[in-house]
Amino acid sequence: MLQLGVIGTNWITQQFIEAAQQTHTFQLREVYSRTQEHAQNLINQVNGTDTLITTDLTKFFASPEFEVVYIASPNSLHFQYICQAIAANKQVIVEKPMVSTRAEFLQIQELLQNHPGIYVLEAARHIHEPEFATLKQQVQQLDRIDGATITYRKYSSRYDLVLTGQEPNIFSPKFSGGALYDLGVYLLYDAVCLFGQPLSAQYLPQMIATGVDGQGTIVLHYDHFDVTMLVGKISNSILPSEIYSGKKTLSFDDGGTVRKIWNNYNDWQFTGTDHNPMLAETEVFAQIIQQKDQTQFNQLWQIADQVNQLLTQIRLAAGIKFAADRSEA
Amino acid sequence: MLQLGVIGTNWITQQFIEAAQQTHTFQLREVYSRTQEHAQNLINQVNGTDTLITTDLTKFFASPEFEVVYIASPNSLHFQYICQAIAANKQVIVEKPMVSTRAEFLQIQELLQNHPGIYVLEAARHIHEPEFATLKQQVQQLDRIDGATITYRKYSSRYDLVLTGQEPNIFSPKFSGGALYDLGVYLLYDAVCLFGQPLSAQYLPQMIATGVDGQGTIVLHYDHFDVTMLVGKISNSILPSEIYSGKKTLSFDDGGTVRKIWNNYNDWQFTGTDHNPMLAETEVFAQIIQQKDQTQFNQLWQIADQVNQLLTQIRLAAGIKFAADRSEA
Repeated sequence: MLQLGVIGTNWITQQFIEAAQQTHTFQLREVYSRTQEHAQNLINQVNGTDTLITTDLTKFFASPEFEVVYIASPNSLHFQYICQAIAANKQVIVEKPMVSTRAEFLQIQELLQNHPGIYVLEAARHIHEPEFATLKQQVQQLDRIDGATITYRKYSSRYDLVLTGQEPNIFSPKFSGGALYDLGVYLLYDAVCLFGQPLSAQYLPQMIATGVDGQGTIVLHYDHFDVTMLVGKISNSILPSEIYSGKKTLSFDDGGTVRKIWNNYNDWQFTGTDHNPMLAETEVFAQIIQQKDQTQFNQLWQIADQVNQLLTQIRLAAGIKFAADRSEA
Repeated sequence: MLQLGVIGTNWITQQFIEAAQQTHTFQLREVYSRTQEHAQNLINQVNGTDTLITTDLTKFFASPEFEVVYIASPNSLHFQYICQAIAANKQVIVEKPMVSTRAEFLQIQELLQNHPGIYVLEAARHIHEPEFATLKQQVQQLDRIDGATITYRKYSSRYDLVLTGQEPNIFSPKFSGGALYDLGVYLLYDAVCLFGQPLSAQYLPQMIATGVDGQGTIVLHYDHFDVTMLVGKISNSILPSEIYSGKKTLSFDDGGTVRKIWNNYNDWQFTGTDHNPMLAETEVFAQIIQQKDQTQFNQLWQIADQVNQLLTQIRLAAGIKFAADRSEA
């Protein structure tokens, strides 16, 4: 069991801790929050025992009580927390997207080179799941790929606030919000894991009042095919996703969490079980940290690198500006 | 009953004649084909009686036996046949896309001004169907539109020929082929009829060996939303189509032929009957011709105009060149 400190106290942190409890990988040891109350609520939710609370970030990172930090703050804050964690020789698990810009990614890469044995793991939970591995096996059995349509478009209740003139973090350019960064990152992981790095990419965003993308269409251009991805947080899509191979179409239920896979060319179909979607990643991350598995870390880092390149390139080309971009100048 | 001459002897001509027979609107009177055999086969298929066959195009258009010509030749030939038909004072029903270029459309528009009482009707069958009217009513009941995803992607058996190095008409730039012109035209009609004329549009095509688009992604930009359309003839999609309105999603089964409509916000759902998809258009076209309904013709012409503008503009911007473009210079 690895001792865990967490930054961020909302539902995703709770889900991660519950997954870690189920897989006996991480034990919640310390919670950082700006308010004691939020931290205590989280601890109550996950039945934490002997869990420390800190409202002082410097003290949190200086704490000897935990060796791994899980970061689920607003996107724009990930970078500074990762830097502080590395400086404190903590292992890092950070929610996707790991960082906001290319410059931030490259700075972290450099920091890691000076801190051997420290890993920064981007919590792209879905690619670690056994259901995703099953999908990938099915894709590998196709004799060629002619394209794909992958969808993750889900209405966010916080868009209600945008419609009343507010700017919640997840839709704010100050916090690196918007559909591409919040949900598109899942789709880019799908594509990079299933098809590799595209030759080029485009994002056609539908902008909203806060200055970020509410939804949009991503098109990735590969050597012989294109992948179209529908992302969004201001409408609900129930479209399944499809991978094309001539007359054959391989379908799966969800670009964010694969649970069902079927096709139009044989009787095979697959239904996964209903479970916490973060279970698999907790096991993978614990193994990398405990076994100092540099090889597996390098593989994940390479994927994270490609996803970060895509995210930042198509965002900037689409004219979506974040406060975090200022440091790029 | 209007007397009908037809150009083109394949399945779509047969389907049109069968629809006309069912609706008692048009009677097949004369068939033009380059070969007597193809014409006779068509006549046999539709149980034609007293039907003339011509292999001479000049004689065909000079024939006093019919007043309406239905044109279902390869796309690139539509223009010259329409011009000849108008010159012969025939009413014209022409398969979509009516013409290949903007210049051709404008020339026909000018010809029509000099031939009052002659109509050129683009056979966008799906927008005339009662199921489409039901869909449109549902769309009009939404308090706002936040976007849409509309799909028509179906593998063409003739793509098998492309894969062996051949260039069938439907995939040939010489004949104004490709996914956008063959199936995308349905989707553009959907969008223009449901949402009006977009402010701008883009097509991201996936090109094939013959030099046309095998499939692609169309994005139409409206004032406050985008419409993404997936078109293709080199893969099979079973995705339904979706229209977004906040948390509400209105779904329908097919961008080319609407038969089922449902949603995620009330218990309403709709299932049409299985019938010849060209029935409705035969009745609409017969009525316009018989009643000299200039108003309804003008409405259809305006839609055809907008679709032609979109088709030609996004095709040329995407770098898809047709032999028919030469005349534009």
